[in-house]
Amino acid sequence: MKQIAPSILSADFMNLQRDVQNLEKAGADLLHVDIMDGMFVPNMSFGPQVVTGLRPLTTLGLDVHLMVEQPERYIEQFAAAGSDLIMIHAEATQHLYRGLQMIKDAGVKAGVVINPGTPVSAIEPVLSLVDQVLVMTVNPGFGGQKFIPAMLDKVTELATYRDQHADADYTIEVDGGVNDQTIGACAKAGADVFVAGSYTFAGDLATRIATLKQAAHDAD
Amino acid sequence: MKQIAPSILSADFMNLQRDVQNLEKAGADLLHVDIMDGMFVPNMSFGPQVVTGLRPLTTLGLDVHLMVEQPERYIEQFAAAGSDLIMIHAEATQHLYRGLQMIKDAGVKAGVVINPGTPVSAIEPVLSLVDQVLVMTVNPGFGGQKFIPAMLDKVTELATYRDQHADADYTIEVDGGVNDQTIGACAKAGADVFVAGSYTFAGDLATRIATLKQAAHDAD
Amino acid sequence: MKQIAPSILSADFMNLQRDVQNLEKAGADLLHVDIMDGMFVPNMSFGPQVVTGLRPLTTLGLDVHLMVEQPERYIEQFAAAGSDLIMIHAEATQHLYRGLQMIKDAGVKAGVVINPGTPVSAIEPVLSLVDQVLVMTVNPGFGGQKFIPAMLDKVTELATYRDQHADADYTIEVDGGVNDQTIGACAKAGADVFVAGSYTFAGDLATRIATLKQAAHDAD
Amino acid sequence: MKQIAPSILSADFMNLQRDVQNLEKAGADLLHVDIMDGMFVPNMSFGPQVVTGLRPLTTLGLDVHLMVEQPERYIEQFAAAGSDLIMIHAEATQHLYRGLQMIKDAGVKAGVVINPGTPVSAIEPVLSLVDQVLVMTVNPGFGGQKFIPAMLDKVTELATYRDQHADADYTIEVDGGVNDQTIGACAKAGADVFVAGSYTFAGDLATRIATLKQAAHDAD
Amino acid sequence: MKQIAPSILSADFMNLQRDVQNLEKAGADLLHVDIMDGMFVPNMSFGPQVVTGLRPLTTLGLDVHLMVEQPERYIEQFAAAGSDLIMIHAEATQHLYRGLQMIKDAGVKAGVVINPGTPVSAIEPVLSLVDQVLVMTVNPGFGGQKFIPAMLDKVTELATYRDQHADADYTIEVDGGVNDQTIGACAKAGADVFVAGSYTFAGDLATRIATLKQAAHDAD
Amino acid sequence: MKQIAPSILSADFMNLQRDVQNLEKAGADLLHVDIMDGMFVPNMSFGPQVVTGLRPLTTLGLDVHLMVEQPERYIEQFAAAGSDLIMIHAEATQHLYRGLQMIKDAGVKAGVVINPGTPVSAIEPVLSLVDQVLVMTVNPGFGGQKFIPAMLDKVTELATYRDQHADADYTIEVDGGVNDQTIGACAKAGADVFVAGSYTFAGDLATRIATLKQAAHDAD
Repeated sequence: MKQIAPSILSADFMNLQRDVQNLEKAGADLLHVDIMDGMFVPNMSFGPQVVTGLRPLTTLGLDVHLMVEQPERYIEQFAAAGSDLIMIHAEATQHLYRGLQMIKDAGVKAGVVINPGTPVSAIEPVLSLVDQVLVMTVNPGFGGQKFIPAMLDKVTELATYRDQHADADYTIEVDGGVNDQTIGACAKAGADVFVAGSYTFAGDLATRIATLKQAAHDAD
Repeated sequence: MKQIAPSILSADFMNLQRDVQNLEKAGADLLHVDIMDGMFVPNMSFGPQVVTGLRPLTTLGLDVHLMVEQPERYIEQFAAAGSDLIMIHAEATQHLYRGLQMIKDAGVKAGVVINPGTPVSAIEPVLSLVDQVLVMTVNPGFGGQKFIPAMLDKVTELATYRDQHADADYTIEVDGGVNDQTIGACAKAGADVFVAGSYTFAGDLATRIATLKQAAHDAD
Repeated sequence: MKQIAPSILSADFMNLQRDVQNLEKAGADLLHVDIMDGMFVPNMSFGPQVVTGLRPLTTLGLDVHLMVEQPERYIEQFAAAGSDLIMIHAEATQHLYRGLQMIKDAGVKAGVVINPGTPVSAIEPVLSLVDQVLVMTVNPGFGGQKFIPAMLDKVTELATYRDQHADADYTIEVDGGVNDQTIGACAKAGADVFVAGSYTFAGDLATRIATLKQAAHDAD
Repeated sequence: MKQIAPSILSADFMNLQRDVQNLEKAGADLLHVDIMDGMFVPNMSFGPQVVTGLRPLTTLGLDVHLMVEQPERYIEQFAAAGSDLIMIHAEATQHLYRGLQMIKDAGVKAGVVINPGTPVSAIEPVLSLVDQVLVMTVNPGFGGQKFIPAMLDKVTELATYRDQHADADYTIEVDGGVNDQTIGACAKAGADVFVAGSYTFAGDLATRIATLKQAAHDAD
Repeated sequence: MKQIAPSILSADFMNLQRDVQNLEKAGADLLHVDIMDGMFVPNMSFGPQVVTGLRPLTTLGLDVHLMVEQPERYIEQFAAAGSDLIMIHAEATQHLYRGLQMIKDAGVKAGVVINPGTPVSAIEPVLSLVDQVLVMTVNPGFGGQKFIPAMLDKVTELATYRDQHADADYTIEVDGGVNDQTIGACAKAGADVFVAGSYTFAGDLATRIATLKQAAHDAD
Repeated sequence: MKQIAPSILSADFMNLQRDVQNLEKAGADLLHVDIMDGMFVPNMSFGPQVVTGLRPLTTLGLDVHLMVEQPERYIEQFAAAGSDLIMIHAEATQHLYRGLQMIKDAGVKAGVVINPGTPVSAIEPVLSLVDQVLVMTVNPGFGGQKFIPAMLDKVTELATYRDQHADADYTIEVDGGVNDQTIGACAKAGADVFVAGSYTFAGDLATRIATLKQAAHDAD
């Protein structure tokens, strides 16, 4: 089943409660929470407090994407705040397996993220450990980026790997430049979860989410 | 004139518009915005986006306190977002004068902050440059800290310095553990602006702000 | 030939001479020395001084495992202290080939180590240069870790690579959670050297070492 | 066509204008500019100013090799200075794709560099983006290094990849220990551009460049 | 009362139990434990494990001197290991007050250390908080350093400050190049505790300690 | 005696030999060499190689100003290259005394530099050790900066300190925005050496240097 995950980074920061509840009514499958520390990426967004705030307001899953240096430092806080899934970047830690293990030990699903310049081969040893792999289809944390079609090869590679390995059991997520024009190719390549930020909020939420879901479904 | 500056860090993160407008109605003199990057301090709060969001919602001044490594990297963004005053930590940069100059060149008032362990002597060369000096009365970015009375000596020292130097023209702010019990001593020592976070939000906003203002006034 | 390498990290820190001489009598094949700097891993152990101290006390080989940021900084000191083999982490340096070359230039055998999350493909360019490859079977430097069976795939991959490349001539070492239950699988996968810490010291040294050696031999 | 790229690092630093013009007359195909920051590598060379100075003095292409931490910080300056091609190290940034994109967005050709210890697999996702791949045949920024023949496998691998992928369109450059004895093997493996530093300047420039070109041509 | 604190860094690393018990018998007043991380200083010594090992072997106080970057990371471990007093460097943290507070909150005495290049004015805000001030009389962590007489001015300044401030209640310690020739001047300037490393171990322990104590006493 | 020290950073980088010899003929008293690593300051200039190149070309003193992180790493190289005096920033190292000592141990004069935001009190412990103190009168390494008159207070403070302490024996240098309009005030405040970059090269060298020297002399 294909899932649409609006990013709350595109919501109205002054009225998160309202926007989050609107997203739930509009048919969002889960919420994507972008955490940026201004070090790993050149922007700052928000910290664990946003997850703490969102948790009682929605029954949707909260997928937390840590764009943070040495994310191990923050796993405990984000788990305690009520995250359902925590994702860390392969490029941000020397101890990737350990970071993912910490997430699982905290009772939360674990995801690994790879930047556009990072190959799938770099994360092979953790593919049997993770619940989700996030393939960045733009460079994270930088504004005004376009969807990079070449990233679809990694989605295909991950889908194939999963088919061929009994111990691999992850969903594949794409993030960056996902809209009604690009979601089809992502779905066809094997992606399961689609982060949609600016596209979702640039029109009627329900219509936009439905359009994405339909496009993902048709392409599959 | 003594000014009360509630910290929006203590507001409801899910409903910032509502809380900010309530603070304005309740008599807040300006708003204190705590930016934490999870590096200079072990917590993350939010980025420039919160200033961009607050700006059109209130006529109050927005004082931005950067608890951030190498704050020079973010001055331009916070100035463009609509800050009225930007404060940087003496401990966070090797180029303190340069950072403060950048703030002023961006057309914004500039403030310098000193941690509890940092002496006034460390910032003497910038005292003729700044519009505000913030004396931390707790350790910034750590939870559950108590007001440190010994910090009042620095407030006194800064007030005396200002009296004795014609080119020194700054307000003195205190931040950390400020409440109805501690504000009097701060005012008496010479502080002009009082950041009040948890105290303000732990009761009726208007009453609490009025209580603080009265206590500061009485002690003066 | 299978070799058992007790880690002196599990010895009595207050009586290293006694314990090291006991290990030699008990049949240890060589000694594994874990150097942790509290940066690359969140624990500190000891520095070159321990190698200097051990050197005159034993004829056993001293294999030094540097869990250290930018290990190039310490190669000279550890070589001078009397190390027989120095191992550095692929994750700890941007100049892996250079680091290994420095070790060899110092007249010492060179080894490369990979964390659980690091694939064999990441170190392919140095496989013709090294004397040993250490596959971490737990996350290094963190306490209370369990043997990760999935790591055996890397041992197999390294053994196969060695068979297929004439210029590859390294021993394969495993470290982490090695005991009488797990050593067999490691040996079968192709490992040659087995670091054994807590298991060795949790009983009679000679019996424990003999048990490990037998299990490794039987499985081969 | 095989191209010889003398490194100006080997020129007379006190008379760069003279040496650069001599190189052009002597038949150099382009100039290789080595930028070292003393952090990524343990030596400092020069900054953008050298490109600004060279630009009006020669019609030769200026290929800039950034041996610099987080090279993204300097791309704009080097592009504005008049670089024709800017190369960044895969080991120096967490955001390799982004760095290369920034170079191209600045209207300059983009190259990626790999250290001796870095495999080709690590840069596969950017092979369709770059104009050049530089295979280091010594460890960059360290003196007295010898050509490492094992690096030729990477040149072959890159040449084969390029043949097999329609979207791959890069030149292959080698740097380090290139001279009349080693250039043949490089050319044969598939290299197109040859950085030659100390060899070129150790004799008559024109003779040396011609010798290299002939040797590269013969081996092809 | 003047106290002699031998540094166990000068003991026989292979036989710490023996040496520590000898030091106690020889009349040492307390033990000085030098922790070096190879980052703050260019040497590594040992970690919390050495304190854990020493604790049950002696009734002497264990004074732990952390020559470690961001010492806050290790305070909890060293407190739990059984330290009596933990000292951190003013140069190693941006949050000096916080670090010292953490030590006291852990139920351990807190000390602050200043390098030879650091003035007393830099630590004035913490002088009412600490139990001990350590004035380095050599550069810490570097070998072969000589006692720097100019540092005695700081000892005098600290003694004077203590006399003049009722809330200041610390002992003054000196470390580096202390021997029978230099201890007198230190004692006269106002030092209370004397770290003695190589001098103590270069002869009969009891004689050497007695000599130091006498010299300190005579000079006072 | 007042000395004019042109900065070779303002010379023609393509013809350093010519410009350096012209400076000597034009009456420069010594040469100021600005080393920037792109880390401590956001620009890169050049490395030890420039000192090596200059050394045989001139009899003038070569004063090297290291705007470099952890300058200890480069002292040996710059000393070997032929520097007469090496200056390091108080803000760039945790071990200032050690850095200065290293310079002296290498047989070179040692200088300490303070940024505009750094007070004289921060370097008091090294004032008896150094041969020169450089007071930055602009922020180092940033372009387009104006002379900051408030810095003259530091020059005065340093001159007074020197008068009052027999063991203080340093020259006072100013750097940044020094020209015919500003040099007088610097000289009057007590400065001995004047770095002059863009001003010197913006006209006839001999005339400009003479003008500066006269202005410094007149004001004294």
